Amino acid sequence: MNTWHVADGFHFAGIHSGLRANEPGRLDLALIFSERAAVGAGVFTQNRVCAAPVQICRERLPAPDVRGIVVCSGNANACTGQQGLDDARRLSAWAAEATVAARADGFPFEKMLVCSTGVIGRLLPMETLCPAIPKLVADLGANAAALERAARAILTTDTRIKVRTRKIKIDRQDIRITGFAKGAAMIGPNMATMLAFVLTDASIDVTDLAALAPVAADQSFNCISVEGHTSTNDSLIFLANGHGVKLKDAALEKFRRAAIEVCADLARDMASDAEGASHLVTIQVEGTHTDAEARTIAKTIAESALVKTAYFGADPNWGRFVSAAGYAGVPFAESQLSLWLGEFLLYDKGTPLPFDAAAVSGYMKANRELTMRLVFTLGSGRCTFYTCDLTYDYVRLNADYTT
Amino acid sequence: MNTWHVADGFHFAGIHSGLRANEPGRLDLALIFSERAAVGAGVFTQNRVCAAPVQICRERLPAPDVRGIVVCSGNANACTGQQGLDDARRLSAWAAEATVAARADGFPFEKMLVCSTGVIGRLLPMETLCPAIPKLVADLGANAAALERAARAILTTDTRIKVRTRKIKIDRQDIRITGFAKGAAMIGPNMATMLAFVLTDASIDVTDLAALAPVAADQSFNCISVEGHTSTNDSLIFLANGHGVKLKDAALEKFRRAAIEVCADLARDMASDAEGASHLVTIQVEGTHTDAEARTIAKTIAESALVKTAYFGADPNWGRFVSAAGYAGVPFAESQLSLWLGEFLLYDKGTPLPFDAAAVSGYMKANRELTMRLVFTLGSGRCTFYTCDLTYDYVRLNADYTT
Repeated sequence: MNTWHVADGFHFAGIHSGLRANEPGRLDLALIFSERAAVGAGVFTQNRVCAAPVQICRERLPAPDVRGIVVCSGNANACTGQQGLDDARRLSAWAAEATVAARADGFPFEKMLVCSTGVIGRLLPMETLCPAIPKLVADLGANAAALERAARAILTTDTRIKVRTRKIKIDRQDIRITGFAKGAAMIGPNMATMLAFVLTDASIDVTDLAALAPVAADQSFNCISVEGHTSTNDSLIFLANGHGVKLKDAALEKFRRAAIEVCADLARDMASDAEGASHLVTIQVEGTHTDAEARTIAKTIAESALVKTAYFGADPNWGRFVSAAGYAGVPFAESQLSLWLGEFLLYDKGTPLPFDAAAVSGYMKANRELTMRLVFTLGSGRCTFYTCDLTYDYVRLNADYTT
Repeated sequence: MNTWHVADGFHFAGIHSGLRANEPGRLDLALIFSERAAVGAGVFTQNRVCAAPVQICRERLPAPDVRGIVVCSGNANACTGQQGLDDARRLSAWAAEATVAARADGFPFEKMLVCSTGVIGRLLPMETLCPAIPKLVADLGANAAALERAARAILTTDTRIKVRTRKIKIDRQDIRITGFAKGAAMIGPNMATMLAFVLTDASIDVTDLAALAPVAADQSFNCISVEGHTSTNDSLIFLANGHGVKLKDAALEKFRRAAIEVCADLARDMASDAEGASHLVTIQVEGTHTDAEARTIAKTIAESALVKTAYFGADPNWGRFVSAAGYAGVPFAESQLSLWLGEFLLYDKGTPLPFDAAAVSGYMKANRELTMRLVFTLGSGRCTFYTCDLTYDYVRLNADYTT
């Protein structure tokens, strides 16, 4: 926490509003507020069924003058019809009004965005949220402690907060990038039950930020998978509140690289903290015709329950890995594929190699982080993808989520 | 077993060969033999990585003069390179030679087909199989008891045999259809770690049988899913050994309907016996533009780990069901969708209905067979799909399959 770089001009809050009525004291409502108008852009779930707050953020972004985001945890406000849309709009208006009242700096209420994560199909408890808003605004702070509270307030089944930051120098000026996120299941590419917020005091043109958002998602959150279930609420939102000369060319590129790194760090944190996971698995696919082919194969392997239970059992049942590659829909011949698990070459251009099963199983047992490498002889496409194992705890956590 | 209809002219055997070296006495090698040349046709896995026996069956089918199938259980003979192909050919030749020697009726060895199911990436223990072949042939019998042994010998993680038969009358003649199958996991449409054999004493043209096979698979085995992992070994093989006038037109159609029914029964048996399953779930999707859309949606819901854990936990977390429909890739608006779980309407044209969570959970707890119904207002497409829940036992069974 001491080493976090908190972007200038951003304030954070995280309180217990009562949204999580059964968990007294647990933080469940967060606020991000920018002192200055911030350029905002986002990427959202590709699910046809998308939550009310996602629909509202889509209407409001990109924009040159966003002022904040209010975030509910414990209720997705998805599949809630017109009432859900009305509630989300009201909530963002309340947060905007209260912030204006406390800060004496007027802005239109639609400059306050709104996000939600949690159980689908339940209406927001507006009567609980209403009295909590002034308390939320009073909690705002422009420091790491406040950031930590906000990062904690957005969590659902996560076991830990996910904060990743960078400080870079551009033209002898310090620029800070402050990212935080939540997500531990329903994480499938395009995207996940994940919320991620990336805040910076850089000055970026709205068009450039809007172009960066999908690229960053593709190189980070779309390269992780827990079980492939695309959520209704996925949101990645960038806010840039610098008011100096806009970053361009090499400076913009330097910023882009750092912002993507922050997103990739957050994505890896999510896979590592996935529900019930006992292994973080890195799947490296290389030598396909294109990067897209490599990702398709990696994603298919990552989402196979048979592959995921094999990691859990430290079972070097590599036939499952190869067969998952085979049904990814990418054409190849077996003689064009080799497979490594850690340092062990198990399958060499279509031929199974004798191997010491106890040694490979030992590698899988001893290491929380496993690496699987599939090398094709087709081209120079590549992808690094993160996933986790499928454990008893995953089943337990998900078998009684609402009840 | 008493009510099974055994197709005329078919003999069956099932023995312990030693393939399953660690399970003394467990049947692991099966043989199907037809007294008469049988018209044969099949449908096989769409996995790019397909087992040696699948490659061999593809070469040999369709054909007008198949004489049998030898089936190994416990070893998939997949990802085994050239050696695996050589071994599978040798095994089928041995079975053909031994059958010819015992029956004194010559036929070319390639008229004996070969199938395998089990662990991927291990070579067949040919030294164990060789001495077992005469024993296998000696075990042949043209009766229900022998069929039962064959049906048992092909099982892997199945908890019970799967035999389904029909007797129909066509032109005042009895026609028998005898189906048996195995499959309890790695069952994804297109198709599954499943082997299914459908044998009939009807007389069918090879072109008609070859046309029937994919249609039957589509309406049965491609409408079930355990976890969506497409296997390397899936095989559905039809043999028809009648030598009378070929069935045509209405007679052929009557046969087709009965054969598809047998396949659908076997498919349902598989979903019901899926690894570790405690619920058989029927997903009915209706009112989409096309049947294909309905199947895509049903399959996506069926394969969501979040949906499957909700069944297991008797958790009426219906948002997961709706959100799985939303990422199936089929365009719809929420207002065009309603959802029933059993008799409970939970989501009515995009609006969540208040419901008694305890009552719905009680329905899920009390019934081994659950029905979920998604009704769209888009057209007349429909699909009935079978799946199961994701349980601790599924994880346990798959975490230590090879070790």
